[in-house]
Amino acid sequence: MRCLVLDPPGTLAIREAPVPAPDDQCLIRVRMAGICGTDLQLLAGYAGFRGIPGHEFVGVVERAPRADASWIGRRVVGEINVGCGACSFCAAGTQEHCSHRTVVGIRGRDGAFAEYLALPARNLHEVPPTLDDETAVFVEPVAAACRILEQVRLGARMRIAVLGDGRLGLLIAQVLRTAASDVMVIGRHEHKLAVARGLGLPASSAAAHDPAARAAFDVVVDATGRADGLARALELVRPRGTIVLKSTVHGPTSMTPWPIVVDEVAIVGSRCGPFGRALDLLTAGAIQVKPLIARVARLDDYESAFAGARGSLKVLFRI
Amino acid sequence: MRCLVLDPPGTLAIREAPVPAPDDQCLIRVRMAGICGTDLQLLAGYAGFRGIPGHEFVGVVERAPRADASWIGRRVVGEINVGCGACSFCAAGTQEHCSHRTVVGIRGRDGAFAEYLALPARNLHEVPPTLDDETAVFVEPVAAACRILEQVRLGARMRIAVLGDGRLGLLIAQVLRTAASDVMVIGRHEHKLAVARGLGLPASSAAAHDPAARAAFDVVVDATGRADGLARALELVRPRGTIVLKSTVHGPTSMTPWPIVVDEVAIVGSRCGPFGRALDLLTAGAIQVKPLIARVARLDDYESAFAGARGSLKVLFRI
Repeated sequence: MRCLVLDPPGTLAIREAPVPAPDDQCLIRVRMAGICGTDLQLLAGYAGFRGIPGHEFVGVVERAPRADASWIGRRVVGEINVGCGACSFCAAGTQEHCSHRTVVGIRGRDGAFAEYLALPARNLHEVPPTLDDETAVFVEPVAAACRILEQVRLGARMRIAVLGDGRLGLLIAQVLRTAASDVMVIGRHEHKLAVARGLGLPASSAAAHDPAARAAFDVVVDATGRADGLARALELVRPRGTIVLKSTVHGPTSMTPWPIVVDEVAIVGSRCGPFGRALDLLTAGAIQVKPLIARVARLDDYESAFAGARGSLKVLFRI
Repeated sequence: MRCLVLDPPGTLAIREAPVPAPDDQCLIRVRMAGICGTDLQLLAGYAGFRGIPGHEFVGVVERAPRADASWIGRRVVGEINVGCGACSFCAAGTQEHCSHRTVVGIRGRDGAFAEYLALPARNLHEVPPTLDDETAVFVEPVAAACRILEQVRLGARMRIAVLGDGRLGLLIAQVLRTAASDVMVIGRHEHKLAVARGLGLPASSAAAHDPAARAAFDVVVDATGRADGLARALELVRPRGTIVLKSTVHGPTSMTPWPIVVDEVAIVGSRCGPFGRALDLLTAGAIQVKPLIARVARLDDYESAFAGARGSLKVLFRI
């Protein structure tokens, strides 16, 4: 099969590889896959990943173990963490924190920038026929946005800022708006802020942001994809407010911890989320993803696709 | 009156100053005051404070506004934040987060390394006769330790690590032990770890700490007083665990934020706490403070007292 391989970190190339053939997993023919900020970080060395990247996908099950044969022919999206099945985290249904886990296209497991990928049936969710591929490929990042709703109790009157006007920021802002009315996007890119406004989200330039808004937000979500996101979020959150960290950024940053203590700020890291809730929100039309699509590319055009993903919104591969 | 003045930052000197005489506050004759890690940070430039430092004290009210005359003659400890009385934080009873607050010996208000200090009556708590001065002077830091119990729900079976074997660390470990049985002190100083063990607390050298203990603790409290405390706490906390930050350290540090996201760690800053609960715990004998006292000094001996406070446990002034 044709696939895109990251090996060594920093170097992408198209390769031919055998179609995966594990006995205990489903084989999925990938139809579309999305480039995520984490993929750009993998290129920079994050997580030391080697192999086929890509963890946002929609595809069709072509083969399955006998016990999972009912999946064959169904159009699916897939949760990306595969736990050991034996540890306390797996037993608690939180395989995303299993210390022996593999993660699709991120850690010890090939991903979706390929014609095929393999996943256990327990990771799969069928896509309703009303969701087209261009929408379904967003289920994984929308689920990650929904994780915030499980972690932070949002009051309807809270002031919420989403820091970062990129792909994930605009999904998060839409998801949080389902639970709270006052959600503002703060970013650095006028063309992305315009997309936010087109989605009905108040949006403000980070550079022009009113100093009076400092220490004004009950909740600040860092979706900047930058290592200094936490420091910027600390400027915006009110005393005893909450910061949600969403950016997985390679490498260290400089920060000054004492304001966390003095203002008794709560910070919570947030990663993967519930696919069921994401599918429900997308099916209900509560989240608009089409305005976020900058380009649909072919795998062979990976160089320009990755270059484009740096400055624009979502770049998808049709595979 | 005789007092110790920090002016400019980095420079301490004994001075003579007028006895404070505000109409609307109580005048307290200070009997004892303790040197806190924050005082050492003030010397290094933290908070840009100029004036009389010292915020841990016990004293006797000598003068009071007519409405508060009942306080005269009573032995007291005092909450250190004085809010504006008008903002939403003050209205909610959280004057420690009032943006216009003064803080005894830390921000815009003279402190306790002096013969007298002034505080509003609403900040005062009477000390029961069963608590001697050497114990009562610990009420403020014990209250700060008790703040953690208000912020983090501790399960009796949780594994808890207190990182830092100093003054505050040993108070925090004793306070947390009232709510959970498995509390370990991790530090760098054998003589302080020995004090911890003398208090019945399991204690472990940070250098020798078993790598298998990494990612093992449900809750890690950073009381290192070091800017890298957060990074060290991140190594010890389990996925989805909680880190409590207690150290107010001047200046920036380098850290790598992605493990917060990937492990979905919660971090909470923690500052001032409930004096009532601290008085109750000390009165009940649940917290031992005498083994933490390294020295009782005179104000004139401030140079050796501050030098000693850097490497030892609690240094008190008898004033």
